[in-house]
Amino acid sequence: MNQEEKCCKDVSRRSVLVGAGALAAGTALAHLGGMLPTAAAKGGKTEKWPWPYVKLDPVKTAEICYDEWYRVFCGGAVINSVVSQLREKVGEPYTSFPSDSFTFLEGGQVGWGTICGSPAGANIVANLIIGPRIAGSPDGHHISADIMQWYSEANMPVFQPINPRVDPAKIVKTTSQSPLCHISVGKWMKEAGLSLKSAERKDRCARVAASTAYRLVELLNAWHDGTYEPTNNFSAASDFGITGQFNCMECHGDDVPEPPTSS
Amino acid sequence: MNQEEKCCKDVSRRSVLVGAGALAAGTALAHLGGMLPTAAAKGGKTEKWPWPYVKLDPVKTAEICYDEWYRVFCGGAVINSVVSQLREKVGEPYTSFPSDSFTFLEGGQVGWGTICGSPAGANIVANLIIGPRIAGSPDGHHISADIMQWYSEANMPVFQPINPRVDPAKIVKTTSQSPLCHISVGKWMKEAGLSLKSAERKDRCARVAASTAYRLVELLNAWHDGTYEPTNNFSAASDFGITGQFNCMECHGDDVPEPPTSS
Repeated sequence: MNQEEKCCKDVSRRSVLVGAGALAAGTALAHLGGMLPTAAAKGGKTEKWPWPYVKLDPVKTAEICYDEWYRVFCGGAVINSVVSQLREKVGEPYTSFPSDSFTFLEGGQVGWGTICGSPAGANIVANLIIGPRIAGSPDGHHISADIMQWYSEANMPVFQPINPRVDPAKIVKTTSQSPLCHISVGKWMKEAGLSLKSAERKDRCARVAASTAYRLVELLNAWHDGTYEPTNNFSAASDFGITGQFNCMECHGDDVPEPPTSS
Repeated sequence: MNQEEKCCKDVSRRSVLVGAGALAAGTALAHLGGMLPTAAAKGGKTEKWPWPYVKLDPVKTAEICYDEWYRVFCGGAVINSVVSQLREKVGEPYTSFPSDSFTFLEGGQVGWGTICGSPAGANIVANLIIGPRIAGSPDGHHISADIMQWYSEANMPVFQPINPRVDPAKIVKTTSQSPLCHISVGKWMKEAGLSLKSAERKDRCARVAASTAYRLVELLNAWHDGTYEPTNNFSAASDFGITGQFNCMECHGDDVPEPPTSS
């Protein structure tokens, strides 16, 4: 089966894998793990995982995130919506983590349109708390993949704040099929017919951040309870021979390159 | 001038701007700054900037980064190549920063091919040390944009380690024209004719990380000396009406969408 056929068959293949998420995710990690020569982490004083975690309220977290967007934008808002609460409930090491440094995640990293700051921020939080896969648990790695796939497939924004700054009727919903800011914002702007500078676009992004914070806390709470099961169900490296998304043809059209197989 | 014309004229426009980097960068930041309702950061105990910094040796940093890639991959390697040295030379707050949590930046965030971990890691370091733009200095924001543009335009990998794990003659050089992992790795694989799993691809990525750490330290040293001048010379938000890169037509071809202007 060549690369193009693989991508064409992607939807049906993924349908087959629904419900087998943990197995698929395990396979993906085994592939990446093959690159790893050592399992030993080096050890600064906060590099002992997991960090202490107490379950948070997803709605409260999303409301904090929505407000924080207007101060530190998407990535900083997702990070601080969790870290600020854990500073109060737990203290260190959250007190020493400089959340506001991550304001630069805005606009897909200082406006470059790469990964949306919302999943980028969620990935940071999951791996801060659970730790990197090299320290023993694959769950932070899995939650990152879960978040990016969920973000790509969700009809965004999912969350609606109690006191919205913009009339919810003016915020259309779109599905990005990508965790990239440029794609996510671009599809929304096209559907809404509104500019990047519009109040609606800004509030849409604040709600996307809040939606992501909500989902992140659901996953962290399940992890804390021991009930977490990965839901991500593909590995681009294993399935397509290159890092990437699940939907090759959305960018490549009918001309999906075949990656070299020589090693 | 419509969007497509803007993109077609991009090279000449950028040529005009060479040497006017500080002015262009200032303009870009003013645009983003217009979204900001408050200049006050909230303040965990490490959220006072700048963090103490002492100048580092770019070559030594790159060598550490090259070795670290084989432990924590691109993003973790760039971060720890700087943080590990500053833990020794300065101590806190670097000692409390959990560098290894950022292993997940590998493969454009757990293999999803979004932003390459090397610029993602460099952006984190610059904004940890200098602080977010909302705390007063725009330099961390600028260095992030500088790093991504430099990364996109450099003939990578630039840096060659003293004791390479793979014969340098086997590591071809390519220009990504993008900070995205999927694009950067994909162009290299195509030129080299080698797979993602090949030892050459892995060593290429280790050298890309080392090259980025080298460039990051050059910029941080200049910032420390008070001689830093931004070199990034475009703002997608201001120039194209959407977050993104500089080269719209590489993905969109002749069909670059016109973003809505209603606000």
